[in-house]
This record gives sequence, structure tokens and C-alpha cells, in this order.
Amino acid sequence: MLKTLCVGASLGSIYIFKSGVFKVNAETPRYMAEPLTDSSVLIKDSGLMRVRMEKFIMGLQGEFCRAIKDQEEKGEWQVDRWTREEGGGGVTCVIQDGHIFEKAGVGVSVVHGLIPPSAVAQMNARGKKLPEGEEMPFFACGISSVIHPRNPNVPTLHFNYRYFEVQESSGKVRWWFGGGCDLTPYYLDEEDGKYFHQTLKTACDKHNTKFYSKFKAWCDDYFRIKHRNISRGIGGIFFDDLDSPTPEKCFGFVKECGNAVIPSYIPLVEKNKNKGYGYAERQWQLIRRGHYAEFNLVYDRGTKFGLYTPGARYESILMSLPLNAKWEYMHVPEQGSKEAKLVEILKNPKEWV
Amino acid sequence: MLKTLCVGASLGSIYIFKSGVFKVNAETPRYMAEPLTDSSVLIKDSGLMRVRMEKFIMGLQGEFCRAIKDQEEKGEWQVDRWTREEGGGGVTCVIQDGHIFEKAGVGVSVVHGLIPPSAVAQMNARGKKLPEGEEMPFFACGISSVIHPRNPNVPTLHFNYRYFEVQESSGKVRWWFGGGCDLTPYYLDEEDGKYFHQTLKTACDKHNTKFYSKFKAWCDDYFRIKHRNISRGIGGIFFDDLDSPTPEKCFGFVKECGNAVIPSYIPLVEKNKNKGYGYAERQWQLIRRGHYAEFNLVYDRGTKFGLYTPGARYESILMSLPLNAKWEYMHVPEQGSKEAKLVEILKNPKEWV
Repeated sequence: MLKTLCVGASLGSIYIFKSGVFKVNAETPRYMAEPLTDSSVLIKDSGLMRVRMEKFIMGLQGEFCRAIKDQEEKGEWQVDRWTREEGGGGVTCVIQDGHIFEKAGVGVSVVHGLIPPSAVAQMNARGKKLPEGEEMPFFACGISSVIHPRNPNVPTLHFNYRYFEVQESSGKVRWWFGGGCDLTPYYLDEEDGKYFHQTLKTACDKHNTKFYSKFKAWCDDYFRIKHRNISRGIGGIFFDDLDSPTPEKCFGFVKECGNAVIPSYIPLVEKNKNKGYGYAERQWQLIRRGHYAEFNLVYDRGTKFGLYTPGARYESILMSLPLNAKWEYMHVPEQGSKEAKLVEILKNPKEWV
Repeated sequence: MLKTLCVGASLGSIYIFKSGVFKVNAETPRYMAEPLTDSSVLIKDSGLMRVRMEKFIMGLQGEFCRAIKDQEEKGEWQVDRWTREEGGGGVTCVIQDGHIFEKAGVGVSVVHGLIPPSAVAQMNARGKKLPEGEEMPFFACGISSVIHPRNPNVPTLHFNYRYFEVQESSGKVRWWFGGGCDLTPYYLDEEDGKYFHQTLKTACDKHNTKFYSKFKAWCDDYFRIKHRNISRGIGGIFFDDLDSPTPEKCFGFVKECGNAVIPSYIPLVEKNKNKGYGYAERQWQLIRRGHYAEFNLVYDRGTKFGLYTPGARYESILMSLPLNAKWEYMHVPEQGSKEAKLVEILKNPKEWV
């Protein structure tokens, strides 16, 4: 068991390696920092879903950070392990101002405590049917990442996978998974769009042949910048409240999705990162990054909920925002241009596979 | 009466001059475009507060745009007059990428129709006591402006003055004024801060000696970026629901405030616009502009309400966003630096006069 619990920070520029219970494994360190949950608990409760999910996201964070770093020439991961007074904490990894990645963030958080009534109300607003007015104990863990490359030919990636537990006063534990993965290109490459969606569909199909089309539509719906009547990007998959048929099957699906992130995205980085671009392409990228910031600050449930939570680590929440963004009054892409072609797809999401 | 109704666009790069009922006055054109309300109504109902307020804000828009243009070497006002299907419209004026002003927006809107229930709920949430569930006719007009100068030594300015009427089913008309004016410096110049606040205080004191301290505190409270625990800037004044003692007195106060905008701000532009600055100052300005965008998109009532209104002209709402902004993960100003000195004031708003 200890094998998956090893810890290290060979990639971290700031994280100070902590030995102790965790021994560096022969396969080189897998995690970016020491897990949030105490090692004794991780060992003792290794059969619990919350522990299994925490280990999975810590591992995925390590794998994904290494895959990103393999593409980068200059940047180093800044690894910040933080704890919060109310219980739990997180590991936030950021590369900023790299050659390939203008800003890349990969965060894990593992938090527990008493769920605030406002959060219960929000969950019930989407049909959760939790008892209101009760201060229920909760546990939540998740991985969340946004990668903003420098080259406008490389799309921005976002993914997030999370697990949630609440305990009602009767002692009954309610649990569910949520997550998704979506792409925001600045210029449309049909081949890339198809490849990305196909990779996600293949992962989905292994578990339920209805998942991809359902979660693809959910994604298009969720990532809508309503006031502009465009989507944030070309979508992917998005789901929430996944709690059937069994915890095991749900976890299997989430792992499948998590493991599909690297194969769905890294090839797009490799393919496009050295393509040429000029001033006009950079300007367009900056304008689209303004739209990205708009979505995250105005509509994104996670961001809003985080920012309204007193004592939240806002630096980890806002790592999703681009390093640079631009708001030009009345910017309209020229008719027939590459930019206009993208906007057309953003207005009317298409089927990719 | 026609004297104040003249229209022109000698400053507008896009607006096409419309003659007709409105004749260019000998004193040169005062408005940036034709008013939203029909000229015959403006003449017939010249005694009504809604007409008086519309004329005042159209005039103030013209005056302020000219005062800004007098400081600018390169930029020209782009003047967009727009109408909305549901009733009314606006005049949006923007200078973008000027030498002195990186982005400056001055908008007037005059809208009417049936007030959506969500807006009534929002008003009642701040104690308005309007009947809920009724579709009441409403009229609203206001002027709103954000000026983002290029030089980090020149502060960003925001002001907004508005008038609102709702008609209850009994026929009773409820009315009130709201507004404010506040400053967001990138570097602290004590003299400028004092001057700005003193100018507003002098305007307030002419009407009610309690106004300044009350509205100054309200401003500090309103423009708080809660997740960062800092204020957006160094404040100014902010008020809402002003409906006593009489419409006349309230309007007199709002006019006083509106007329104080130019004297409170233009001297700061003149004083600082040619000061030298370097890369570090520009970077700090961009980071602070990120905070500005955060406030407007996450907390500002007007922006949020506007963006959530179907069919709203989002370009006019978002003209307040800076041309460029930056989000650096974990940016912390160096201890003892000029930047840290500003943050200290943003954390703990001070008394200026």
C-alpha cells in the first residue's frame, strides 16, 4: 500500500520535501506534495471511497504536472501545500510565464467540516433534496486544472473531477461524483476538436454508451457565456450528481475520465506549440481570454461559491484566470476570417464525433 | 428651452449628425447624440423629473466627454446611440487605446418598460418594500462612466448617477435617486486623495452636512473586493434610494454631485499624465486592473443585474472593464514598496478630509 503513498517534489520549485512516514519510492515520486489526509488515516481507511479518491487525484495531479512539464522548456511548477483552519487543505501547482505555458494551474483540494446552509440551498436548487437548515458534516475532494498556453494555436484546457459526501442527521451518508473536461481553442482545428472529443467519448463509452452524448450536451449548456450568447469553448464533457449504479462503478468512470486527460490534450500541445503566429493572433487570444475570465467570474458555480466562502484560498480559486486578458469595446472579427469561423462554432456548438 | 436640446457630434467618430427638431446651438453642440426620448415629449413634459434628469445626464455626458477629450492627444470618442426593443435605449461613448486614456467610457441610458420580478426582489432585498409578483411599469435613466488612463500615475475614475421610477398597481409612483463617484489610484498621492474627497465633500456639504461622511462610508462598504479583503480603490461617495425630503432637493443634490465630477478628476489627470513610469509600474497597474475586473464581474450590482437581463447591451455594460488586465498567481508587493503602501490603504480605508 505504501507504494502509492510515496511523496516527493522533484518538480516543485518551492515545496520543501518532507520525509517521515512517506518514503520516496523506487519509481520516483508520484505526488506533488504530501497528501492532505494523514498517512495513518490513508493506510487505515484505504478501503473508503474518500481515501481512494484522494489518492487518485493526488496521483493524477503528479502525472499531469509531469506531462505538462515535459512540454515546457522554461517554467517550473510552484507547489503550494496549504491547510485551512476549518479542516483539510490543498496542493496548488502553478507554472507562470513559461515558454510554452503562459499560465498553468493544477490544484487538488481535500476539505471537510460543516456544510454552510447557503451551499445546501445551492445544491437543492439543482435537485439534491438535502435537509435544509441542518449543519451537516461534509467531505469534498477534487482536482481542478486550467492550462493557458502561450501559442494561440494551442487550445486552453480545463478539467475538474470531484467527490462529495454529506452526512444527514440520521447518520445517512449521501455521496456523489462530478466533473468534466473541456477545450477552448483560439483558432479552430477540426482535427484537434474531433480528436479531443473522440478521446473523451472512448473513455465514456467504456462505462455507459449514453454518457458521452448526455455529458457533451451538459457541457455545452453549462459553459455558456449567456450575455454574449456564445460558449466558452468547443466543450467536452460535464456531469454532476453522479451516484448510480454503485460507488464502485462511478469511481471507475471518474478514474477513466481522469486518465483520459493527458492523452486528450498533450498531443494537441505537441502538435501546435511550435506553429508560428503574429500580433493579430495574440490579440485575438487575449480577447478570448477576457471572455474566459468573464465566464469564470460571472457564471462558474465553483468559482462563485469559492469566492463567497469566507476564508477561502482565493489564489487557488483564481489560478484559472489567464495571465493576460483584454477587453476591447465592440470587437467584432472580420467576416470570413479565422476568428469569425471560431465564433460561429461558439454560437452554435456542433457535434464532433 | 430648445437651447439645452441641441444635438451634435462634432466629437464622435461614428455618430452621424442628425438634424431635425434639434438645432445646433451657437454655443456648440452639448450632447453627444440625439436624446433617447422624443423631442416633442422632452418639450411637452419639460417639468417632469424624468425629463429633467434625462436632459441633465445628456448634458453632463457632453461636458465630461469634452473635458476628457481636452486631455487626450490621439483618441476620438466613438459614439453609439442604441435603442432596445422593450423601450428606451442609450448613448455609449468610448475612447480606446488613446495616448492618455487607455479606455474611457461614458454611457447614458434611458429605459422603461415592465420591471422584471427578479429586479423587484433585488430592490426589496435592500429594504425597498415594493409589492412583489406585480409587473410594474418602470422608468430608469442614468449616466455611468469609467476612465482608465494609460499612465499608472493617473487614477481610474468611476461615477454613476441615476433616477428611478416605478408605478405600483394603485397608480402610486415611487421614485428615488442613486449614484456615486470614486477613485482607484495605482500609486498613492495623498494630495490627490485629499483633493478628490474634499471636492466631493464640498458638493455634499452644500446640501446636507451629514451626507459626505454617510456616503463616504457607504462607498467604502460597497466597493469591497470581499475575497481579497481590500477595497477597489480609495473610495469617494456612494448612495442609493435617496427620496427625501423632496424630489427637488434630491435632484439638486444629484446635479451638484454630477457637476463636481469634472473639477474632482480632470486636475488629477493634468497633474499626473506626463509623469514618467516604467515596466514595474505598468505591471502593477495591470494587476490592479485585474482586481477592478474582479469587483465589477463578481460583486457590482449594476453589472450583474445588467448581464443577467436578457437582451441587455453587454458592450455598454462591459465598457467599464479595462483594455488590459493581468492575473499573476500569488503576486505580493514587496514590503515597504509604493505598491505595498497602496495595499495598506486598500485594506484599511482612511479618512481623507
